[in-house]
Formats: sequence, C-alpha cells, structure tokens
Amino acid sequence: MLSDQQMLRIPGPTPIPPSVQRAMSQPMIGHRDRDTKELLRKIKPKLKPIFGTVQNVEILAGSGTAGLEAAVINTVQPGDEVLVIVTGAFGERFVQICNAYNIITHQIHVSWGDAVTPEKVESYLQSHPSIKAVMATFCETSTGVLNPIQQLAKVIHQSSEALYIVDGVSSIGAIEANMDAWGIDILVTGSQKAFMLPPGLTFIAASSRAWEKIEANDQSRYYFDLRKYHHSSLLDSTPFTPSLTLLYGLEQVIKLLDQEGLANVFGRHDLMMKMMRAAFHNLGIPLLTSEKAASPTVTAIKPNTFQADELRKVLKDTFGLVTAGGQGELKGKIIRIGHMGYCSPTDILQVISSIEIGLKMIGMDITLGKGTQAAQKIFLRSGKH
Amino acid sequence: MLSDQQMLRIPGPTPIPPSVQRAMSQPMIGHRDRDTKELLRKIKPKLKPIFGTVQNVEILAGSGTAGLEAAVINTVQPGDEVLVIVTGAFGERFVQICNAYNIITHQIHVSWGDAVTPEKVESYLQSHPSIKAVMATFCETSTGVLNPIQQLAKVIHQSSEALYIVDGVSSIGAIEANMDAWGIDILVTGSQKAFMLPPGLTFIAASSRAWEKIEANDQSRYYFDLRKYHHSSLLDSTPFTPSLTLLYGLEQVIKLLDQEGLANVFGRHDLMMKMMRAAFHNLGIPLLTSEKAASPTVTAIKPNTFQADELRKVLKDTFGLVTAGGQGELKGKIIRIGHMGYCSPTDILQVISSIEIGLKMIGMDITLGKGTQAAQKIFLRSGKH
Repeated sequence: MLSDQQMLRIPGPTPIPPSVQRAMSQPMIGHRDRDTKELLRKIKPKLKPIFGTVQNVEILAGSGTAGLEAAVINTVQPGDEVLVIVTGAFGERFVQICNAYNIITHQIHVSWGDAVTPEKVESYLQSHPSIKAVMATFCETSTGVLNPIQQLAKVIHQSSEALYIVDGVSSIGAIEANMDAWGIDILVTGSQKAFMLPPGLTFIAASSRAWEKIEANDQSRYYFDLRKYHHSSLLDSTPFTPSLTLLYGLEQVIKLLDQEGLANVFGRHDLMMKMMRAAFHNLGIPLLTSEKAASPTVTAIKPNTFQADELRKVLKDTFGLVTAGGQGELKGKIIRIGHMGYCSPTDILQVISSIEIGLKMIGMDITLGKGTQAAQKIFLRSGKH
Repeated sequence: MLSDQQMLRIPGPTPIPPSVQRAMSQPMIGHRDRDTKELLRKIKPKLKPIFGTVQNVEILAGSGTAGLEAAVINTVQPGDEVLVIVTGAFGERFVQICNAYNIITHQIHVSWGDAVTPEKVESYLQSHPSIKAVMATFCETSTGVLNPIQQLAKVIHQSSEALYIVDGVSSIGAIEANMDAWGIDILVTGSQKAFMLPPGLTFIAASSRAWEKIEANDQSRYYFDLRKYHHSSLLDSTPFTPSLTLLYGLEQVIKLLDQEGLANVFGRHDLMMKMMRAAFHNLGIPLLTSEKAASPTVTAIKPNTFQADELRKVLKDTFGLVTAGGQGELKGKIIRIGHMGYCSPTDILQVISSIEIGLKMIGMDITLGKGTQAAQKIFLRSGKH
C-alpha cells in the first residue's frame, strides 16, 4: 500500500481541503486585535444563510457536544420536562445531557436505522402539554438517518409551546436548513463535519423566542452562557479567546462554499447519497435505512452475508480507506461511510470500486464493477457534468 | 513597513513555531482511530513533568476559561464558601465563575501590580474555617505579576482543609511548577500561551484529594465533567471529539520542549524577564511590578511621561510590533509585553531596540541603545551563550 495515503470516509472528522489547511497556517494574531474583529465580521454574516436564519450564529471553542449542552442549559431548567427523540447514539447524548442537569426527559425511541414520524411526536405532545422543549437530531450520525426536521417543526408548534432544539452536527453545511422558515428554535453544529474543518468549534443559532428563554433562564452557566456570546457579537468579539486557527480556516471554507454556491453544495451531497445507495443496491448489499430516511451525508450498510468489520479491516489495510463501524446496539453489524464536506462524486466512485475489491478479497461472490456502474449511471443521469 | 510582518508580543496568544505549524497541517484522522490513541499515548505522559505531577493531565477542547470553570464546578458546589485571591482580571474571572454558580466567594484583593502575601491568606483562612477551596492565579496576565504559588500552598494546607485551585494559564510550560510537591490540588492551563499553540485546548490536572471531591461532587455538569475525561484517559481516548489539529501541534511542542530541556525553557523565560526589566530600568521607564512580584512571561510598564497607547500605536504602525494595553482599571495606563513560548533573548533585544525608536518617535528624550545595552549585559552575564 502506498504509504502516507489515507482516505478518511468516516462521518466526521472529515478531510480538510488543502486551501483550508493553508489558511490555518497563517501566523497567530491577537484575539482582541482589529484583525480578529475583521475576521469575525467577515465570517459571521456568511453563516446565516447556511443555517437559514437572520439571527447571529454564535461560535464557541469546544466539541459538538459542548454546543448541544449549551443549547440545553441555556433554555431548560432542572425539573423542566422535555421530549427527546432518540433515533440513535446522538439522540441518547441529549438524554445524557438532560440527566446530568436533572431535566426530566420524555423519550420517543425509534429503531436504530429508522426516522421518527411527525405523527408520533404530534400525538405525544398533545397528551403531554407540560413539555417545554423538544430535542431532535437532524442527521443521526450513528445510523445515517435523516429525521424529518421541517415536518417535525410544524407538528411541534401546532401542538405545543415547546422550544424546538435541533442537533445539526452532521447535516448543517451539507443539507439545506431553513431555521427561521421551518421554526427551529436552536440549531447547533460542529466544525469537523460538513464545514470541512478540524474539530474544535461549535456553532449555535437561536430564534427570538429562544433568546427570550435564554435571557430569562437562571440555570447556572458561565462558559456556555449564550448571553455572553450574544453581547460580544454586537462588538464583533468573543467573550473568551476564540480558536483563531479554526476561524482562519472557516474564512476559507466560506469562500469555497460561496464559489460552489450553497444550492450546489446541497445538490452534490444529495447526488453522492444516491450514488452510494444505487451502488450497494446493485451489489445486493442491504442498506440500513430506507430511501425516505436516508441522509445525504452518511450511508450505512448492514451486510447479512459477511462480517462488517472484516471488510472494514481489508479496506483500511489495502487502500488506506477508513470507514466507521456501528455504535451501541449496531456495533460490529454495520459499516458507515461518510460523504460530507470535502467529498465529491469522483470520491464516491473511488470508495465504491475499492469496496468491490474488498468484497472479493473477503471471499464474496460479487460482479466487479456492478456497484460502480450503478453509481456512474446516477451521476450521468443527474446532469451534473 | 514591510508588509506581512507582525511580531506578536502580547501575553497570549503567542506566535506558533514553524515546525508546530507544519505538524498541524497533517491530514485529518478519525477521532476514534488507533492513530488518535497513539497520539494521546505519546502526548499525555509528557505533560506530567510540565505540571510537576504524577496525575494524568486531562485535555479539553475549549478556551482557558473553560478549564477554570471545569476546575471550579467539579470541586465546589452552590452554597460552598471559597476564597478567591484577586490580583487582577483573571482573579476576577474566578469570582465571576463562582457567582454564576451561586458559590459564595470571600475575596482578598491586592492592588493591580502587586502579588498577594502568604501571610494575608494564612490569617484569612485561620479566621474563616468554612472555606472549602482557595483559588489563585499563578501569573496574573493582566499585570505581569507572579503570585507566590508555592508559599501559598504551604499556608493554605497548614491552616485549612481547603482545596487549592491554581490558574496556570500564562505560566505553565514557561515557569517551573511542582504541583504534587507544592500541594496544588487543581492546576489549569491553556494552549495559546507558553505551549506555543493556537487557542482551543485547556489542560487540567487534579491531585488525588481533588479527585475524591470530583468523584463525590454532584454539581450538574456534562461536557466539563472531569470524571468522563479521567475514564476515557484510561482507554487512551477522550469523551468528546478532541481538537485533533491542536493535538498534532502539541506532539511537536513537546518535542521542542524536550530538545531544549524543561530546565532550560524555564531558564530562558527567567532570562528574558531580567533583560526586559533591566532595559526599562535603564531607560528610566517605571515597571508596574516589583522585582519580587515579576513574572517571567509578561512585563508591564507604567509610563508617567508619555501615553501608553500612543507608544503602542507607533510600534504597531512602524514595526508591526503588537503589544497589549491595560485591562480594567489599568486601561490606557500600561503596556504589557508578552515573552513566553516561542520567544528568545534575541527577540527581546528586537523588542527593546524597537521600543527605543518608538520612544524617540513620540518625542521622548531618551538615549538610543541604553535599554538594549542593559539587556545585552544581562544576557552576557547569564552565561547562556
């Protein structure tokens, strides 16, 4: 195997584009200097269309979980009842955060690999009027499920006064989000997914009704206190030293997204999903999720004729192609392939054709090129050429 | 002025060494991969001598303030009484964090520019036996004061059962710290100071008696829950996605510190402080702190014959030399010059000789070279050549 080649195709962290890597190599600057203010002034307005909001998108130094925790503790208080929609490991993370703060969770659990239905949420909320917030995962990274976030918004607001908090960690920047139009109250993401950056930043936007709750909430918090970020934003600043290197990278990421155009970015992800799914379908390898529940950013297969982890090992050893296994109850049972951020249709062809060889190497009786061909056809039919 | 030249001489963020910059440009890896485990296995034991501890040093993604908050909320609970030693803006930050969590603060205030005396703390603790923790700032970045952390440890443990929590943000890695031998219970630092990295990581080590409190503490927390980091450490992992780019950089920083030798690193900072002080002394410009209270990482001058901010502006415009002004009550009254991390005696000569020109440019009647000469003499006398 060619040394020093690695194709990182896990659902985040994702590869960094060379120009972003170079942007992050700029010399350090003072975090209270004009340079930092200018950087923030350039970056922050550009985040709004990605979130689909007119609100400021606040930037915190921390992992995606830090953002989720900030979303929860700024809006909900100990003893409050919330509804968490659990469709996989990241739905469970919301539950864990709430548990840590003595927030009472109602939970709707859906089989891992399925999306929640709006009807289920609607009837639950109607019979539980005390619920103050609903937490949902846009793309459930652990399964490759895309939950119907827009439709959920509708039923949530029709049937309750609850705030709607959405984990957009492996979706925002790859999948269209219209936070304001749909009625999402808090939307969170991280830097290491569709934003094509290293981990270390988390982004949060809040609706005006969420800001009212945030301002009035007396839950103890300091570093995660969104009021501090909001206040600093008005001065083109941050309350605490920001991750300057990642801000440099973000400036370049925004240029790349602008050059491609957001609609094209979303279209590319949709196309990659379709190529992936057609390939596995044609190879006769079961997909974990239905077409309706599939995420444009991560595809999971659930093989019934070979060991998932055996194929993953061969792919890594032979090609340096790194995929992800299952989490929780799906450990050892699935393979997850990330296709978000710095990933294009030609990368999908590479992944699929390499997987075909891997399947042969572990003794599977498949026709080489059959999956690739299906993906190629999808590409040609898409007109994206 | 030569375009694209900037000399960042603020007390953090500090310049990044080229080899660290290159290390951070390595391609992204999976945060749950063997590569990340190996990286953590290489890095983490090397942090222990820098902190002077046999305990694990935990790494969180976040600003230094995130580390200070984690230190507080893992060990203290609402309603507990603590003593905060306030010698400047970062002592006040401890107070703000405690206030956010309804922790009752006793405060010893010292004039900005002075260090606290152990006697003051001793007598305070003797008359207030209910105090559960004492919080102190090793180097107070806002004034360039180095508090007597070792001596404080002694009086704190002799006169109370309180935990001793130390903000080491602009000292650890530049100044000797013997956490275990001195009796520090929690020691915190950040990446963007003596560690020569961009901001975005915070480091925390805890003594075994602090770990007992941490384990027993039921204060609500999730992302900042040090128990999670401790548990993951045992598996060479992290509970949440780490800032992988900064970990790559940290691996190289540790190589640089190893090559120089920690004792020499500390010696270099001490020498730079002496050169700075001798220069200003010889130029007749008042230093903010006494020799005894001076920090090896940042020097503040408090001019009485010219406007601090006027000189700062000339230095930036003429040489791209960036210094820091005063914070809080010292705003506009002082100039702070950082000399930590990627900074050497020759850089100090550059700073001083440039400042001499700046002084002339703002109309001061000084003898050019007088400060530089004093610094040169200190260097030659030190035998570090």
